[in-house]
Amino acid sequence: MKTEIIERKKVKMKDGVLITGLPGIGLIGQVVGRYLVEELKAKKVANLYSHHFPHQVFMTKKGAMRLIKNTIYEYRDGKTEMLILTGDVQAMSSIGQYEVAESMLEYAKKCGVSRIMTVGGYSTGKISEERRIFAVATHKELLPGFKKFGVVFGEAKGSIVGIAGMLPAIGKIRGFKGICLMGETHGGYVDTAAARNIVKLLSEYFGIPIDLKRIDQRAKESEKMLKKIEEEIQKSMVTPYEVPKGVSYIR
Amino acid sequence: MKTEIIERKKVKMKDGVLITGLPGIGLIGQVVGRYLVEELKAKKVANLYSHHFPHQVFMTKKGAMRLIKNTIYEYRDGKTEMLILTGDVQAMSSIGQYEVAESMLEYAKKCGVSRIMTVGGYSTGKISEERRIFAVATHKELLPGFKKFGVVFGEAKGSIVGIAGMLPAIGKIRGFKGICLMGETHGGYVDTAAARNIVKLLSEYFGIPIDLKRIDQRAKESEKMLKKIEEEIQKSMVTPYEVPKGVSYIR
Amino acid sequence: MKTEIIERKKVKMKDGVLITGLPGIGLIGQVVGRYLVEELKAKKVANLYSHHFPHQVFMTKKGAMRLIKNTIYEYRDGKTEMLILTGDVQAMSSIGQYEVAESMLEYAKKCGVSRIMTVGGYSTGKISEERRIFAVATHKELLPGFKKFGVVFGEAKGSIVGIAGMLPAIGKIRGFKGICLMGETHGGYVDTAAARNIVKLLSEYFGIPIDLKRIDQRAKESEKMLKKIEEEIQKSMVTPYEVPKGVSYIR
Amino acid sequence: MKTEIIERKKVKMKDGVLITGLPGIGLIGQVVGRYLVEELKAKKVANLYSHHFPHQVFMTKKGAMRLIKNTIYEYRDGKTEMLILTGDVQAMSSIGQYEVAESMLEYAKKCGVSRIMTVGGYSTGKISEERRIFAVATHKELLPGFKKFGVVFGEAKGSIVGIAGMLPAIGKIRGFKGICLMGETHGGYVDTAAARNIVKLLSEYFGIPIDLKRIDQRAKESEKMLKKIEEEIQKSMVTPYEVPKGVSYIR
Repeated sequence: MKTEIIERKKVKMKDGVLITGLPGIGLIGQVVGRYLVEELKAKKVANLYSHHFPHQVFMTKKGAMRLIKNTIYEYRDGKTEMLILTGDVQAMSSIGQYEVAESMLEYAKKCGVSRIMTVGGYSTGKISEERRIFAVATHKELLPGFKKFGVVFGEAKGSIVGIAGMLPAIGKIRGFKGICLMGETHGGYVDTAAARNIVKLLSEYFGIPIDLKRIDQRAKESEKMLKKIEEEIQKSMVTPYEVPKGVSYIR
Repeated sequence: MKTEIIERKKVKMKDGVLITGLPGIGLIGQVVGRYLVEELKAKKVANLYSHHFPHQVFMTKKGAMRLIKNTIYEYRDGKTEMLILTGDVQAMSSIGQYEVAESMLEYAKKCGVSRIMTVGGYSTGKISEERRIFAVATHKELLPGFKKFGVVFGEAKGSIVGIAGMLPAIGKIRGFKGICLMGETHGGYVDTAAARNIVKLLSEYFGIPIDLKRIDQRAKESEKMLKKIEEEIQKSMVTPYEVPKGVSYIR
Repeated sequence: MKTEIIERKKVKMKDGVLITGLPGIGLIGQVVGRYLVEELKAKKVANLYSHHFPHQVFMTKKGAMRLIKNTIYEYRDGKTEMLILTGDVQAMSSIGQYEVAESMLEYAKKCGVSRIMTVGGYSTGKISEERRIFAVATHKELLPGFKKFGVVFGEAKGSIVGIAGMLPAIGKIRGFKGICLMGETHGGYVDTAAARNIVKLLSEYFGIPIDLKRIDQRAKESEKMLKKIEEEIQKSMVTPYEVPKGVSYIR
Repeated sequence: MKTEIIERKKVKMKDGVLITGLPGIGLIGQVVGRYLVEELKAKKVANLYSHHFPHQVFMTKKGAMRLIKNTIYEYRDGKTEMLILTGDVQAMSSIGQYEVAESMLEYAKKCGVSRIMTVGGYSTGKISEERRIFAVATHKELLPGFKKFGVVFGEAKGSIVGIAGMLPAIGKIRGFKGICLMGETHGGYVDTAAARNIVKLLSEYFGIPIDLKRIDQRAKESEKMLKKIEEEIQKSMVTPYEVPKGVSYIR
């Protein structure tokens, strides 16, 4: 096994979009990916395994077992053709990141995907009220379509580490258009509120009604918890968990 | 040399089972593997070498030398066709674990093996009187056959690290059925008593009489030693050797 | 993606020279490479990507993104045919260094390059007034042409680590002639003055007038800063930043 | 470049022997290898380069440069056909050790080599007066020929790490006969006296007169130095440099 995508069902799209939500800063990508799959009732079409993932097998409550993996889902309606990539893990090494990204792009091309949207977090080290959505894109023409929903370009600085950067950046070389959407977040917590904003953005961007009730509920709860933590911090003036500030690691 | 299986004798089975016992938690796998080979007088049929093993050569008492390796044995009686994989070591990296597992599965398929049973330890951090056998399986239909001998499904949590997980989990993708048997154990000691229980289980499951005298003897001795250690611990209330608790690393 | 050179424009030279300026000691290579590209208005002809580079993507001020890379530029006048290699980064591992060097040599051969000149720093741990240029070459006949401009052979000791050594040394095996030019430098600072001397040398060696005004200006500024630092050090007699002394790591 | 052996001269032997002396414990292998090459006036026949060696280039006093490498020499007289492998370095990883060993074996087979003798050190952590030569071999029939010169079999314990073990042990799988000769040594010092004993052994074993004057001289000097160190140690009863005791790491 190198990196291997095992298909359950062949996918054929005319002008598909690939959305990825994998573990990274604030777990924003993973939360968005899973919520989309659940709410859109997307269908599983393939599993991605890789020798660049840990040599680890998960045990389930019912006494079953499964290899660590990424999973690809399909969603279609009258106007949108969408692949969603979620999963347990990202490749562990730099070589692995390149290999998995190339495998995924090859598969996406075969399926008829032409655009890539990755979701990650942009760590600020601050607990922000605003939770803006920052983005960088491979082609200028992509910007207006996102700016009108409030997405901020040109403010995020530094570099993106991991699949959220690799897929659109290598994708550009392979003939795709791509954008990386980054939820503004502290970086030291799972940030459901930031994830919620990106789900809302995608719902509006694609014109697909996605019910935000469940994620709103979870976001409020985690918000309350963060508030408490923030107050504790301001009392003690000590950061509870050290996060790189002002940089934009996504992985 | 990549990963290379060098055959001494071609093996042809109709519906073989592969049992693996390699070094891991509590050395349970290795103890079981070696005991089976000895008691069943299994015949060596192949050596497995890999560049993912350490670059190490063992010196023997008689002035000989041999490369670090895994060894494959064959046991047959009227109704059971069995391969047993034992050895010095597991592959050292994640990439190595995937490569060795795939090589072993390819070889097993060629030999006519359809089922894989791996043996490992499930570390609890406690010295248990019970020493149950936990398991996870790739297919539901495998459960009843083991449950009737007291094997516990659905209680072990977390993830399995190493060949004991890799072989059945990748095996499932390659068309095998598989189960991973885990002896409940402290994790910080070689646990012959836990190994003994798994040997007994396999003897009953396959209906092959295996003499337990020698392993019973050894288990009693190590049991006594553990009792002493336990008493010491309870006196001092300090763990003598730190083990991850509540997780299920097998490697 | 392994290591991949993507051409924008085919290059055909009769007897080309490849000059490399990549990050290393004192950033001398990178400063020289970039200054040459700017002043000679060299044209971009290819990008070099590699899975041995970090899995990192840079965000630009305008909201664009690009994969980490090296870039190859072309400069030609009536008598000189030159490729200039600059970039963000060197390969991270030993295997990566060999692979990137071989890819680059293969590309250079295809373009008609026969000579390789790499630029690096030679770290002394001292802030030198002189800032000599040390060099080692693959063929004796290369020495006189550089000696007449004051380049010092046979004084730099030890080993060269990184692309500045790999390219000419592997290049020799592949039929190239090569030289590694090393600016004498402290090693703990970006040394624009040392870089300036190498730019001047290359200008004289090739008989290409290169305006040194801008780099002179920058060198003076960094010189002043170093003077201050030096005075501080002599006051306190403590090295502000530890550098290996008397060795010649270039990477 | 993977691992590459570049021949200067084709070698054709009927029943050649390969002797290897590379850096390892006490530098015994390297000292023996180089002394043989010098005294036997062996001729360079090939260079071995590898991406598993460090990405390092050596600078010479005359302003030349060369890639880090191993070198293969040939010695022939009426009755002995010998290849000698020496060099700067061993492969840095386990995968590299396997790859370099296999490349070397393939080359040796092509040259007509059938026997492999590697030279290393066996670290005892003690400064021994005796400096015996320990050995392990791949085939029993090799033992008597060495025993009659005092070589001790069956006493060295544990494992051999590095090329001195890899070459004969993998060699056995590839159809060679092999032996690993280990000079008894402290492990923390370059041990010329131990190397001298192995040179003497090889001279006697092959019936090739090798002048020991120069190595005797050097051995005496290093011996004196060790004596002094030993006295210092016994005064202070503290080991000056920690070495693994009772094991037999050779690399």
